[in-house]
Amino acid sequence: MKQLILGLAATLMMTTAHAEPTATGDLGLVIERAKGSVLLVDQSDRAALARIEGLGDLSHASLVYSPDQRFAYVFGRDGGLTKIDIVTRQIVNRVVQAGNAIGGAISDDGQLVAVSNYEPGGVRVFDAETLEMVADIPTDSKTIGLVDAPGRRFVFTMWDSGETWIADFNKGDPEITKISDMGKNPYDALITANGRTYITGLFGEDGLTALDLWAETPEPIRVLPDYGRGQEEMPVYKMPHLEGWALTGREFVLPAVGHHEVLWIDSDTLTETGRTKTHGQPVFAMARPDGRQVWVNFAHPLNNTIQVIDSVSKDIIHEFKPGPAVLHMEFTPRGHEVWLSVRDANKVMVYDTQTFEKLREIEADSPSGIFFTARAHRTGL
Amino acid sequence: MKQLILGLAATLMMTTAHAEPTATGDLGLVIERAKGSVLLVDQSDRAALARIEGLGDLSHASLVYSPDQRFAYVFGRDGGLTKIDIVTRQIVNRVVQAGNAIGGAISDDGQLVAVSNYEPGGVRVFDAETLEMVADIPTDSKTIGLVDAPGRRFVFTMWDSGETWIADFNKGDPEITKISDMGKNPYDALITANGRTYITGLFGEDGLTALDLWAETPEPIRVLPDYGRGQEEMPVYKMPHLEGWALTGREFVLPAVGHHEVLWIDSDTLTETGRTKTHGQPVFAMARPDGRQVWVNFAHPLNNTIQVIDSVSKDIIHEFKPGPAVLHMEFTPRGHEVWLSVRDANKVMVYDTQTFEKLREIEADSPSGIFFTARAHRTGL
Repeated sequence: MKQLILGLAATLMMTTAHAEPTATGDLGLVIERAKGSVLLVDQSDRAALARIEGLGDLSHASLVYSPDQRFAYVFGRDGGLTKIDIVTRQIVNRVVQAGNAIGGAISDDGQLVAVSNYEPGGVRVFDAETLEMVADIPTDSKTIGLVDAPGRRFVFTMWDSGETWIADFNKGDPEITKISDMGKNPYDALITANGRTYITGLFGEDGLTALDLWAETPEPIRVLPDYGRGQEEMPVYKMPHLEGWALTGREFVLPAVGHHEVLWIDSDTLTETGRTKTHGQPVFAMARPDGRQVWVNFAHPLNNTIQVIDSVSKDIIHEFKPGPAVLHMEFTPRGHEVWLSVRDANKVMVYDTQTFEKLREIEADSPSGIFFTARAHRTGL
Repeated sequence: MKQLILGLAATLMMTTAHAEPTATGDLGLVIERAKGSVLLVDQSDRAALARIEGLGDLSHASLVYSPDQRFAYVFGRDGGLTKIDIVTRQIVNRVVQAGNAIGGAISDDGQLVAVSNYEPGGVRVFDAETLEMVADIPTDSKTIGLVDAPGRRFVFTMWDSGETWIADFNKGDPEITKISDMGKNPYDALITANGRTYITGLFGEDGLTALDLWAETPEPIRVLPDYGRGQEEMPVYKMPHLEGWALTGREFVLPAVGHHEVLWIDSDTLTETGRTKTHGQPVFAMARPDGRQVWVNFAHPLNNTIQVIDSVSKDIIHEFKPGPAVLHMEFTPRGHEVWLSVRDANKVMVYDTQTFEKLREIEADSPSGIFFTARAHRTGL
């Protein structure tokens, strides 16, 4: 395997301004959580191109891309919002917009970047060009589950009050629609890829709550009433990531809470259609873009393992141990390869999804989230 | 409206080598069918950037993009295969690979470009880097409906023999699987966005034929037995474009053959669920990426009109006349705008899909197909 290991030092290019003609369709950024840096990577070459430093606290960081796939907006845990130019490989702007932030989103026209904050609670919206604040939406609550929706809208949910708000920027100043009774202590949410259905996970009670954003007046719809912690006491950090939900044809795959299994859910009726036993407590269950496979990683201490499930038979067809602390997976846009962050091996690993062969190891410092630029063209990522 | 018209002469940049830092995520190419040229456009700026000439006969032309969204492979009617670098804005290679060609595809790993030929009938496969031929697959038939499928596969169908072939390049040399009895004179085909279902339209009889590419041994499945020309005699050029099929949540929208309506089809069972009367014979019925709207254009002489259908109510919610000969529509990847080719106005027009307001007119010479680079990351486009 030695020959597959690319020495980062040897392959890193200068992080000073870079002005070669560059196409950005197959690039990506990997969060290096301990260092406060991101690694610019190239899918086609399976290589690291540059490290960009100085992004603050990147524990639990995420990012979105501009529609031209030139700029990344990185949301740090410390409230930092950093704009990176991946063509010149430099930070072009950075603001610390709150004390404690938890993710962001970009409007469908690419002009507005929104950040969801714990402290002070609420959402702040910035001009994507200048990072000047264009709207401040205080919510008197920790605010979670922020996503973009078609039509220059953002949707987000309040941990304390159990409300979901829709902020519509179509006419300039936001029009806010408030939906109450989403459930007790929503802790995360997702929007389906078509931007129609918004679903919140609940920490304070079992079940999930869905909203049909195509309805004239969206109303909370309780689904999967048995889904959740049940009688078990578990810390929040073990709740599965909802954004990892996988859509395979007509079904979603949903990591169970606290149990060693994934649940199959009819995407239309949001009712359970089956379960598959897994190696441990699933964290992410990610569908390959064609939906034929679902890749699952697991919570500590079983987080050195990946299982692959066939979405037709619902059987596990492959299991392997990439290394200690597999935190995240990202498929190439058409699904022929998958990149894994193996944090405690300080490596990103690239696998062929047909043969399961390891194609490359790339050195990275405590890698966590992997974000390919194709996300620029998807809703809710 | 004058102020919206961008003079092409004023905005065109030199077509000589261009080496500014460029991001390619929001670019696109418009086929200029009469001139044998393509127009490089920028979605965010709603502008033409450059014209690239010398591509031969571009009547009925199409193109695909490399995974990095840097190179376009243009398939001309005359058998020409032209590789364009949209960063330097130049033709980098061109081969005339057959006498009469009808479209192409690129493998999921971006390494193979395949072209479907009438004369001589068959498929030829080229190295995407060099355009050297790596496989010649004669079929003794006009070959249509060529698409890429996950796993380095191409699928295509024979007009004369009614066979569909799957060419699997996963191990280097292609392994060919032949499926017979697809129906009489298949004239076009599509693959669903997840790469699972391949559907052929038939000229020689009514009905459509589907293949489940996830099956161990795919078998022809006859669906929609009443779909087709019926007793009417119509020339081939009025058969609707199958690749225009729109997926809206759980349903496809299918242009009727010869009738002034579109059909709604359950995507799972491939049975009809409803019809919507339209202004004329539909040519393309394209879903906005979120699936909420379907935009329809029409055959001559009603081809100056667009109708927009709401996919929930199935009612027509908007109708307008962009100008003479609206040939093609392309949505921005997240659907907030749509670009229309209005051939006989020599313009591409850009509309807001929420307000239906016209945002820009861009001069173009007899524009037909519009292809945005986001297609690089989709299967079967």
